[in-house]
Amino acid sequence: MAKDDIFSKVPDIGYSEPNDFKDPSGFASLIEARRSCRVYTDEKVPEDVVRTCLSQALLAPNSSNLQSWQFYWARTPEVKSKIVEACLSQPAAKTAQELIVAVAHPEMWRTTRLLNLEAFKEESNLKVPQSALDYYEKLVPLAYNQGPLGIFGLIKRPILFFRGLSKVTPRGPVSRADMRVWANKSTALACQQLMLAFRAQGYDTCPMEGFDETLVAKAIKMPSKSEVCMIISVGKRDAKGIYGPRKRFDEKLFIHEV
Amino acid sequence: MAKDDIFSKVPDIGYSEPNDFKDPSGFASLIEARRSCRVYTDEKVPEDVVRTCLSQALLAPNSSNLQSWQFYWARTPEVKSKIVEACLSQPAAKTAQELIVAVAHPEMWRTTRLLNLEAFKEESNLKVPQSALDYYEKLVPLAYNQGPLGIFGLIKRPILFFRGLSKVTPRGPVSRADMRVWANKSTALACQQLMLAFRAQGYDTCPMEGFDETLVAKAIKMPSKSEVCMIISVGKRDAKGIYGPRKRFDEKLFIHEV
Repeated sequence: MAKDDIFSKVPDIGYSEPNDFKDPSGFASLIEARRSCRVYTDEKVPEDVVRTCLSQALLAPNSSNLQSWQFYWARTPEVKSKIVEACLSQPAAKTAQELIVAVAHPEMWRTTRLLNLEAFKEESNLKVPQSALDYYEKLVPLAYNQGPLGIFGLIKRPILFFRGLSKVTPRGPVSRADMRVWANKSTALACQQLMLAFRAQGYDTCPMEGFDETLVAKAIKMPSKSEVCMIISVGKRDAKGIYGPRKRFDEKLFIHEV
Repeated sequence: MAKDDIFSKVPDIGYSEPNDFKDPSGFASLIEARRSCRVYTDEKVPEDVVRTCLSQALLAPNSSNLQSWQFYWARTPEVKSKIVEACLSQPAAKTAQELIVAVAHPEMWRTTRLLNLEAFKEESNLKVPQSALDYYEKLVPLAYNQGPLGIFGLIKRPILFFRGLSKVTPRGPVSRADMRVWANKSTALACQQLMLAFRAQGYDTCPMEGFDETLVAKAIKMPSKSEVCMIISVGKRDAKGIYGPRKRFDEKLFIHEV
């Protein structure tokens, strides 16, 4: 069965990509250097640095390569000041050199599933299994289309429940809330890559979630059915930019060996 | 007003943390090396590598430092095989040396807001502003407690709506769905840090979302009111581990200058 094929068997694609990159101490320094910065200096961030970091963010892993993310980079003083205001004029926004609004877009799969199919066609040198094509052609719409008012999800719920009584069954997404979670997850993966990218370029960032989403949506002309995941400010850290040592608690609360 | 203070003014904490880390080419190599790996070799991942990477994941930024994440590291063959089964026995799980279940926990703020308050008390050498203490004492419960059946959120919604007509007003979280999104965002930030940490140690990962959540929850004894964000498998990439070149589409779809 095609469906079992892609999930349970290793396909013979005719592709290999060895990579022996290793740099534990460099990475430790990178993540040690990344702190959420609340006050920036007047130093500008070069345009090409922002472009590089945004491009690098898009290399993050994401759900089924459906890339449910969008990044709105504020370029005009008008848009910037609207976002600063929406962020309650907090110093992390007000003193920022650059502001990037990361948007989670639960409907991106409609576009990106087709782009994935096109990309497969261009890989004529590889043996792309039919099951991979079927995945984007048939399974993706079945899984992610929740229908008007989420009605398809409501229909799927009992079907998956009863199937799940006897068979291993993925349970979601079966609601618009699930789709929000789904899109935000991938977007957040890219956001972390973005923040580390800036730190690797010598710049600091602050991810912000406290903002008036209605005002932000207007400022960036956010597409309908999408939502702001977080706003990331960028700049060089001011001497007062870090509000104290990093606070982490007993790891036993967060890491469980089972 | 204390509330305005923490948001709009730069506090004089008496702390500075300069850091001049910069390594653009190292980071470019790191993210180039990170590919989602679907087949692993038999080579073990040393226990201390896993511990280091999990600790590093916990250094990711997160919403209000409330650390709404948990990581369940499968240590026994029994738990591992249950997770593999729940992941539809896909090679990325079946051939993995290690499996880590990343859990988003929307209720963690109840514990971590208190830990933040305690940590402030221990920083007697710093001038922690009263507004920061007020934030964790008063604002966090007000913002994140949705009440039984989400009723507090329902009450908050019209209040925030009407306030938003004349004042800049953060609109959420006002539902259990919002809290799910909230917790998953922070967890995903840590997941990306975790995957890059493993790559920096010379190991590959695959984030998986296609699984039977009911079976995973049972296998790891997941606490109630939490949910699986993603399952991350770890190991050394097999020659057949990468299913083709990375597919990214026209950046204009994802990066918007506004």
